[in-house]
Amino acid sequence: MKVEIITTGTELLLGQIINTNAPYLAQRLNELGFNVLFQSTVGDNRQRMAEVLKAALSRADIVITSGGLGPTQGDITKEVAADVLGLPMFLHEPSVRRIKEFFAARASKMSDSNLRQAMMAKGAIVLDNDLGTAPGAVIENNTKTVIHLPGPPHELEGMFETAVVPYLKEKFGLQGVILSRVLKTFQISESLLEDEIKDLIIAQTNPTIALLARKGEVIIRLTAKAATKEAALHSIEAVERSVRERLGDKIFAADDETMEGAVGKLLSAKQLTMACAESCTGGLLTSRITDVPGSSSYLLGSIVSYSNDVKRDALGVGADILTTYGAVSEETAIAMCKGIRERFSTNIALSVTGIAGPGGATKEKPVGLVYIGIDGPAGTKCYKNEFTGSREKIKYSTTQTALNILRKYIEAL
Amino acid sequence: MKVEIITTGTELLLGQIINTNAPYLAQRLNELGFNVLFQSTVGDNRQRMAEVLKAALSRADIVITSGGLGPTQGDITKEVAADVLGLPMFLHEPSVRRIKEFFAARASKMSDSNLRQAMMAKGAIVLDNDLGTAPGAVIENNTKTVIHLPGPPHELEGMFETAVVPYLKEKFGLQGVILSRVLKTFQISESLLEDEIKDLIIAQTNPTIALLARKGEVIIRLTAKAATKEAALHSIEAVERSVRERLGDKIFAADDETMEGAVGKLLSAKQLTMACAESCTGGLLTSRITDVPGSSSYLLGSIVSYSNDVKRDALGVGADILTTYGAVSEETAIAMCKGIRERFSTNIALSVTGIAGPGGATKEKPVGLVYIGIDGPAGTKCYKNEFTGSREKIKYSTTQTALNILRKYIEAL
Repeated sequence: MKVEIITTGTELLLGQIINTNAPYLAQRLNELGFNVLFQSTVGDNRQRMAEVLKAALSRADIVITSGGLGPTQGDITKEVAADVLGLPMFLHEPSVRRIKEFFAARASKMSDSNLRQAMMAKGAIVLDNDLGTAPGAVIENNTKTVIHLPGPPHELEGMFETAVVPYLKEKFGLQGVILSRVLKTFQISESLLEDEIKDLIIAQTNPTIALLARKGEVIIRLTAKAATKEAALHSIEAVERSVRERLGDKIFAADDETMEGAVGKLLSAKQLTMACAESCTGGLLTSRITDVPGSSSYLLGSIVSYSNDVKRDALGVGADILTTYGAVSEETAIAMCKGIRERFSTNIALSVTGIAGPGGATKEKPVGLVYIGIDGPAGTKCYKNEFTGSREKIKYSTTQTALNILRKYIEAL
Repeated sequence: MKVEIITTGTELLLGQIINTNAPYLAQRLNELGFNVLFQSTVGDNRQRMAEVLKAALSRADIVITSGGLGPTQGDITKEVAADVLGLPMFLHEPSVRRIKEFFAARASKMSDSNLRQAMMAKGAIVLDNDLGTAPGAVIENNTKTVIHLPGPPHELEGMFETAVVPYLKEKFGLQGVILSRVLKTFQISESLLEDEIKDLIIAQTNPTIALLARKGEVIIRLTAKAATKEAALHSIEAVERSVRERLGDKIFAADDETMEGAVGKLLSAKQLTMACAESCTGGLLTSRITDVPGSSSYLLGSIVSYSNDVKRDALGVGADILTTYGAVSEETAIAMCKGIRERFSTNIALSVTGIAGPGGATKEKPVGLVYIGIDGPAGTKCYKNEFTGSREKIKYSTTQTALNILRKYIEAL
């Protein structure tokens, strides 16, 4: 079954936003066994959108559009598709009610233009939107199927999972399964990683093994095709074992698990509590830890100590340490983690102090210099790091490294 | 001059990597005055790539491809294009030498397959690649121009800036300029915003006015075409004034400025210091404030108080308040911001306490209930909010709302 994805919107065409809907849909459709052969992007222009829809309908069985379901005059996707398919439109009353309820529940005012969102092509199967006002639609037309999804990624993803996947499964049956497992590694480069497992990459055709560099990590993707989900999982697991034997604890998580999720699991399993004392990361380390649902059971609190006064008064870093070694030093990092651990009475404490840039560097202390301290039942340690890149990149690299230090510290307990 | 962008590669088609090349090229080409009307993505398949190239050549003057210039058998873009244009290929000796030198300089071994990268369509203008082995190419064919660029984003961007931009400027002359200004609004829905300025949107054709919903905000984009940058800016400014008159302080920032950047500017201008006491946002509020370079001059520090002990001991929230009203209450939010302001001796303090979910809700206190407190020279205030969505969305909405409260508080001082 051939699928074409059409993402619409002038903002995509002008390059003002990154297209995350096309890769999301492509990945999920492949997992479900559909062949995505083309992706197109077109602006909010009737003639050109019609042209792209006609081309897609000529070569694909299923055409999925994203965007252009909103209330404004620029939202024309449903209209153009109805026109191309030669279908009249009508006001879908259940959608009118849902849109009214959506606004009422938020005690906010509905505009009349929101009613445009309830206009549907004749015969459309309407897809409810639980996360926004724009309903989606499926239009079955002879041998072709057109599916309209909203543009905001969380609305599109929600509607795809709750409405489109069940529809596709029922209508087309399962056509075999493509499944992927992602193994996430840290602190090993893409090329060194390839050297470690090159023979496996070459030998393997099903599952295939692919390496991809991502923000702060390199991931290994194992992709298997099989008749059933069970068979695909089985063949993935065999290859996963070989890869894990080679790489050991360089792999920190699998699939959707994050570094902070992996750390959270360890803390929960060992019933440990923790706290952070952050300087250059400015709260990002604790924010990542608290992105994990249930993190309140192990993260008691943190102090962001940007000023020396806060380091001294709230964390108990000695004035002599700050004067002698400076705020960005091993001595300060150690005093920070010991200070917060004592004050917040936790099992473990992490600290970070460094220079996120672009200002603040000296000859001895360049932008990117960061000390990470850890204090807990296995004693105190401090790690010196030199990160590169923008302020935000240095903040992120610091949190990823600190979480990895914490992960290994807990694993060794 | 109409341009179509074709990004190639099975990894894009499968959604395994995000397409950053298309938005990069689209944005730059628009700035240079070219009209990007379509973007297509196709895999490494001869027939389908030929089909996409033919369609593009039929409707665009300039077709730019990315990807498929590598050494492997899957890299077929140049071959397919030569075939579609009816041109033979030859081995381009200067490129052979450059590729050999590239490997020699890195003391790494060249594979014979790298020579495929030096194969060029007859008459091609070869574009050197300073950042990798794959040269690019420009092929002028009757009235059409095909430009091949490599897939890795840093190679594509480097080659576009150093080779393609000068080529386009010389060949086509400057065709005027398209400039955009983005005005960012908060706490007004897309449709209500449209109602406010509908007459302007309809009346305006140059600059055009477009509305877009983004994470935590709705933006207004003004896009002007003109002969010169100055003329474009001038016509944008006139419309911007009209829009600002209607919307007042609902607009919090312009272009690349963020909410945290706008707040930082105000704090610096009024020489105020601040601190945060965060519960449900877990450090994200302070992390966003400290994303701004130079924020250490006004942000002295923060406390993340996840546990009641930390709220009591580190922030001084009375045990009676926690027992009587609970951690998620107006009383606690007020005690938190007063507590941190006093302890860290700042001019202003922000506090947040709420339920980020998915757990932790009660009948009276649902997921998404958040109190935001502010304490400063103009007294203490507390705002009750009910946010919706995932844990991460509630965290983000809370920080955006808190920063907006802070912005208005400072503006009124």
